[in-house]
Amino acid sequence: MAKAISIIMGSDSDLDTVNETVKVLQEFKAGFEIIVLSAHRTPKEVARYVESAQGRGVRVFIAAAGGAAALAGVVAAHTTLPVIGIPIETKSLKGLDSLLSTAQMPGGIPVASMAIGKAGAKNAALFALEILGINDNLIRRKLAAYKKNMRLKILKSKLKI
Amino acid sequence: MAKAISIIMGSDSDLDTVNETVKVLQEFKAGFEIIVLSAHRTPKEVARYVESAQGRGVRVFIAAAGGAAALAGVVAAHTTLPVIGIPIETKSLKGLDSLLSTAQMPGGIPVASMAIGKAGAKNAALFALEILGINDNLIRRKLAAYKKNMRLKILKSKLKI
Amino acid sequence: MAKAISIIMGSDSDLDTVNETVKVLQEFKAGFEIIVLSAHRTPKEVARYVESAQGRGVRVFIAAAGGAAALAGVVAAHTTLPVIGIPIETKSLKGLDSLLSTAQMPGGIPVASMAIGKAGAKNAALFALEILGINDNLIRRKLAAYKKNMRLKILKSKLKI
Amino acid sequence: MAKAISIIMGSDSDLDTVNETVKVLQEFKAGFEIIVLSAHRTPKEVARYVESAQGRGVRVFIAAAGGAAALAGVVAAHTTLPVIGIPIETKSLKGLDSLLSTAQMPGGIPVASMAIGKAGAKNAALFALEILGINDNLIRRKLAAYKKNMRLKILKSKLKI
Amino acid sequence: MAKAISIIMGSDSDLDTVNETVKVLQEFKAGFEIIVLSAHRTPKEVARYVESAQGRGVRVFIAAAGGAAALAGVVAAHTTLPVIGIPIETKSLKGLDSLLSTAQMPGGIPVASMAIGKAGAKNAALFALEILGINDNLIRRKLAAYKKNMRLKILKSKLKI
Amino acid sequence: MAKAISIIMGSDSDLDTVNETVKVLQEFKAGFEIIVLSAHRTPKEVARYVESAQGRGVRVFIAAAGGAAALAGVVAAHTTLPVIGIPIETKSLKGLDSLLSTAQMPGGIPVASMAIGKAGAKNAALFALEILGINDNLIRRKLAAYKKNMRLKILKSKLKI
Amino acid sequence: MAKAISIIMGSDSDLDTVNETVKVLQEFKAGFEIIVLSAHRTPKEVARYVESAQGRGVRVFIAAAGGAAALAGVVAAHTTLPVIGIPIETKSLKGLDSLLSTAQMPGGIPVASMAIGKAGAKNAALFALEILGINDNLIRRKLAAYKKNMRLKILKSKLKI
Amino acid sequence: MAKAISIIMGSDSDLDTVNETVKVLQEFKAGFEIIVLSAHRTPKEVARYVESAQGRGVRVFIAAAGGAAALAGVVAAHTTLPVIGIPIETKSLKGLDSLLSTAQMPGGIPVASMAIGKAGAKNAALFALEILGINDNLIRRKLAAYKKNMRLKILKSKLKI
Repeated sequence: MAKAISIIMGSDSDLDTVNETVKVLQEFKAGFEIIVLSAHRTPKEVARYVESAQGRGVRVFIAAAGGAAALAGVVAAHTTLPVIGIPIETKSLKGLDSLLSTAQMPGGIPVASMAIGKAGAKNAALFALEILGINDNLIRRKLAAYKKNMRLKILKSKLKI
Repeated sequence: MAKAISIIMGSDSDLDTVNETVKVLQEFKAGFEIIVLSAHRTPKEVARYVESAQGRGVRVFIAAAGGAAALAGVVAAHTTLPVIGIPIETKSLKGLDSLLSTAQMPGGIPVASMAIGKAGAKNAALFALEILGINDNLIRRKLAAYKKNMRLKILKSKLKI
Repeated sequence: MAKAISIIMGSDSDLDTVNETVKVLQEFKAGFEIIVLSAHRTPKEVARYVESAQGRGVRVFIAAAGGAAALAGVVAAHTTLPVIGIPIETKSLKGLDSLLSTAQMPGGIPVASMAIGKAGAKNAALFALEILGINDNLIRRKLAAYKKNMRLKILKSKLKI
Repeated sequence: MAKAISIIMGSDSDLDTVNETVKVLQEFKAGFEIIVLSAHRTPKEVARYVESAQGRGVRVFIAAAGGAAALAGVVAAHTTLPVIGIPIETKSLKGLDSLLSTAQMPGGIPVASMAIGKAGAKNAALFALEILGINDNLIRRKLAAYKKNMRLKILKSKLKI
Repeated sequence: MAKAISIIMGSDSDLDTVNETVKVLQEFKAGFEIIVLSAHRTPKEVARYVESAQGRGVRVFIAAAGGAAALAGVVAAHTTLPVIGIPIETKSLKGLDSLLSTAQMPGGIPVASMAIGKAGAKNAALFALEILGINDNLIRRKLAAYKKNMRLKILKSKLKI
Repeated sequence: MAKAISIIMGSDSDLDTVNETVKVLQEFKAGFEIIVLSAHRTPKEVARYVESAQGRGVRVFIAAAGGAAALAGVVAAHTTLPVIGIPIETKSLKGLDSLLSTAQMPGGIPVASMAIGKAGAKNAALFALEILGINDNLIRRKLAAYKKNMRLKILKSKLKI
Repeated sequence: MAKAISIIMGSDSDLDTVNETVKVLQEFKAGFEIIVLSAHRTPKEVARYVESAQGRGVRVFIAAAGGAAALAGVVAAHTTLPVIGIPIETKSLKGLDSLLSTAQMPGGIPVASMAIGKAGAKNAALFALEILGINDNLIRRKLAAYKKNMRLKILKSKLKI
Repeated sequence: MAKAISIIMGSDSDLDTVNETVKVLQEFKAGFEIIVLSAHRTPKEVARYVESAQGRGVRVFIAAAGGAAALAGVVAAHTTLPVIGIPIETKSLKGLDSLLSTAQMPGGIPVASMAIGKAGAKNAALFALEILGINDNLIRRKLAAYKKNMRLKILKSKLKI
C-alpha cells in the first residue's frame, strides 16, 4: 500500500521529538515515510523529494524544524498538498523562534503549525490522520476510538491527595 | 452540493479578518457555511453545531478567535475532522495571546494554527482547500493554478526605484 | 457539609502544582471536590460536571491547565459562579502560553487568573477562601490569622550573612 | 444600602478603561465607590482607604493600574477581601508589563487578574458581581440574564458577506 | 558610623541573589543594614522601616524582589532618597516579570532598575557606592581601584584554546 | 554654579522624550548640560566628554538611547559617577530592545535603568535630583514638595462618571 | 562593470523598507541588482537566480522578508557568498517574528541579520559595502567619509530646549 | 601570513561558546587572533585594539557578548571593516537580551548578528570565511567542500525508529 504520510525533519537531533509522531502513526498502522532533509543544508533534495513523494502517493507532509525553522514553509512552497509543521523546542528561546518561523507564513502558502515540541509532534500525526480520515472510514473509526480512550483515561484518573 | 467547509468565528468583530477566508473560498467556488459562535458565550451551541455540521457534510472546520482563543480547541474537542485555527490580531498583545492559545494545544487534540490576522485567514481557506484537494482533482488543479498565479505575479513585479 | 470549592485540573500531571491548592484548603479545613477533566478531551463531562457541581453546593471553581489553557474559560462559560484559573508552567514557554490563555478572556466571561505555577496554585485556594469568607466569619478569621502568620514569619527572618 | 464594590484606579488617565467597569455595575444597579489612589503616589491613603472601606461595607475591591502596576497587590496586602486587578494597556509594552505586575503575585497574597484593557475592565465588574452573587439571588438572576443575552446576541448575528 | 545603605529583600529566598550585593559592600567596608520585609506581606512595616531608616542615616535603599515585584516601588513611595531595584530571577518567566515590575515605574516615582539576578545584585551595591562616592573621596578612590582591577583582570585573561 | 547633571542623548530624534527630563530639571532650577553624542557614531567624543564633564563638576549622568542602546553602558564604562539610562521607545519592538540593552548590564558596570519612554525620562530627572539631594537640603525639600504635590493632585481628582 | 550586490525582497510591499538600502547604494554609486523573489512563492526561481547571480559577478546578497522570513536562509542555502538579512517589520508582531526567523539560523548556514525595518535596511547596504571595501580602497574611503559625516552631523546638533 | 580574522569576547566565560568559532577557523586553517576585551570594563583597550588590528591585517571582526551586549556595536563604532556579533546565551533571559542588543543597531553602524549561542558562534566563523572567500579561491573551495559535507552527512542519516 502507498505510504500517504511523509515526515521530514531538519536534523537527526529532531528525532527525539519526532518519535512522538512516529509512535502515533505506528499505533494507527498508518503508512509513512521518514527522512532527514534540511531546508538550509539540502535545499535541492527537499524540492526533489517533495515532488517525488507526491508521485509515490504521499498525501500529507509533516515537517519538523527548530530555530529559523524554514523547512515546513519550503516544503509548502513545492506542493499543494497539506503541510503540517512541528516547531522543535530550542535551547535558548525554547521554541518561540521555531513557532513564529513555522506559524507566521505569508498569505498564499499555508503551513499548519502544531504546538512546540513533543505535544506538537504527537498532534502532527493525529492531524495528518484526521486529514486522511475524511476519505477513510477505518482511520476515522480509529480516531474516534483513540479519542474515546483519552476520554476514558481522564475519567478514570485516580488522584492521590 | 454539500458544503464541505465550515467557518466559525468567535465574534462578529472578527469578520473583517475572516473576510480573507471568505474571499478565497468564493474565488475557488468552494461550498462553505459561516457562523458566529463563541466557545465562551455559546458553548453548547458550538458543541451542537459541530456535531450537526458533520452530519450535513462538513469535512473541515475553520475557527477564528482572539485573545484567550479557545474556539478552535473547543471545536476540535467535539470532532475528529481537521480543525484550522485563525488567531485574530488583538489590540494590546497584537495576537501573540491568540497565537499561543491556538497553537499550544495539548497532545491528543490537534489544531492547525495559521498566522495571526489576515494572512492567516487567507491561508486557512487555502489549507482547507488543500485538504479537500487530496480527493478532488478540480480543487487541486485550481490550487496549482492559484500557486502558479502567485508565482507569475511575483515574476512580473516592476520595481520603481 | 456541602463542599463549596471545586478544583478541576486538565491533566493528572497538573497535580504536582495543584497540590499547593489542596494543602491550603486542607489547612483551612475547607470542603472541596477535586477532579481531572479536560476542556479538550472531555468537553461534555466538563459541562455536565460544572452544572451538577452547582447543584451540590459548589460556590467557587478553581481550574488548572497549561499551554492553550482553555479549561478555566470553558468552566466560566457554563456558570455564573466565580472561576479562578491557575496557569500551569509549561516545558517550552514556561507558562507564558498558559497565562495568556487564562487571563486574556473576552469581555463577558470573566476568569480570575492567578500567577503561573505553584504560587498561583496556593493563591487560588486563598482567593477562593477570600470569596467564601465574605459571608463566613470563621474563614475570615482564619484568613486574618494566616496573613498575620506570614507577617510574623517574615519579621522573624534571621539572615545568615 | 452599603456599597459592596470599591474601584480604585492608579491615575485618572485610567478612567477611559475603568468606565467599562462602571457601565456594567450601573447596568446591574450595583452599589460601588470609585476613587483615584496610587500605590506609589499615595501609599498611606491606599492603606487607610482599604481599611476604612471594609468598615463601610465594601466586600470586593477592583484595582486598575498600568506599567509596574503595584496597586492591586498593595490593596491585597491590606485586606483579606477579594481583590480583582485590571492591567491597564500601556503605550510601549501594550500592557504586558501591567499584566505580569498584576498576575505574578507571590504565594500568600492573591490578586485575581483580568485581561489587559477594556475587556478586563468589563470582566472585573462581572467577576465582582459573581462573587457577590453567591449570596444574592437577585444578582445571580441578573448575571444569568446577562449571560443569556450575550448568547442571544451571538445567535442573532447576521453576517454580511 | 551611620549605615548609609539599606538592603531590603522581599523574601529570605532572595538571599542567594542578594549575597552578591552584600559581598561587594563588605569588600568596600561600607556600612549597611539588611532586612527581610515584603511589600505584600508586611506593608506597614515597610513604610515604617523606610521612614525610620532615613532617621538613622540611611541614604540609599536597595530593594530586591521577584515576580510582581512591588517592593522597590513601594519603598520609593515612602522616601525621596534614591531607591535601587534588583529584579530577582523567577522560576517560570526567568525574571522578565520582575524586571518589568521594577523598571516600568510611572512618572513621578523613580526606581533605578538593575539587571535580573546576581549581576544586578552586584551592580546594586556598586551603584549605591557610586551615589555615596559623589561626596566621599575614599569610596570614589575605592571604586576607581575596583574598576582598574576589573580592567586588569580582563587584560590578563589567558585563553586556553 | 557648576552644572551637576549631564544629559546625553544618542540622537536628536530622542529630544521629544528627553524633554520630559529637561522640564523637571528646569522646574527644579537644577543646573544641567545637554548634548547629543552617540556611542556608535561618536565613540571617542563620548569618552572624552564623560571625562571632561567630571572635571567641570558633573556629578550624575543621564543617557538616553533606543534599540541596541549602548550609550548608558558606554558612559558608565568611563566613569565611577552614577549613570541613569532612559530606554527610548522604538518603532518596531516598542522599547523592549532599549530596556534590555539598558538594564541587563554585566556585573561590575552598573547602569540605573528607568522605564521606557517619557515616564522614564521624567523619572531620570527625579532620580538624579534624589542623588544630589542626599547632600543638598534645598533639593531635598523641593523633592518633598514635588511628592506632596503629586499626592494632592491625586487626592483632588474629580472623576466624571 | 559587474554589479557586486544583489538585493532580493520577498514581496513588492517590502520596497518601502528596502528603499533605504537602495538609497545608500546609490549614494555610494555601488552597482546592484534588485529583484522580487519569494522563498515560498517562487522557490525555484530563488535557487536559479542565486546561482546565476554568482556567475554574473554578484559578491554579496541582501535578502529582505517579513513574518516567517525564510528568504535570507534559503538564499544562503544556495551559495557560499555572504548573505545579509533584513527582517521586515510586520503588522502584528512588529518584526519580532521576522528577526527570529532571520537570525536564529542553524549552525552551518550563516545569515547576517540586521535590525528590524528601515534601520536594518540602511545597514544592510553599509554592511555589504564594508564587505566589498575589504578589497576596494575607493569604497573604503567612501565609508570612512560617510562615517565621518555621521560624526560631524551629530557634533553639529543644535538642540532647541 | 597576516591574521585576517579577529575574535573579541567580552568575558572569558564566553569561551565555551566562542570555541565553536575557533574550531571552525582551525578546521579551515584560517589565521585569527583571539582576545578578551570588554566594551564596559576596557573601553579604551577595545578602541585601541580595533584600530591596531586593522593595521596588522585584520579584515573581519567577530565580537561575542551577552546581556546588554554592547561589544559588537562598539567595535563597529571604531572601524569600517565588517563586524559580526555573537549573542551569548544568558542565564535569565536566555539570550533574548543579547540578541536584541546585538541586532537592533541604529542606522549607520551595521553589525551582522548571528544566532544566539553555539550555532551563532559556529556561523560567525563561516560568515567571516565567506567574506574573505570573495577574494580567496582557496577559502571558497573549502567552503564549498564544507557545505557539500554537511549535505552528505544529512543524506546519509540513518534514523533508528
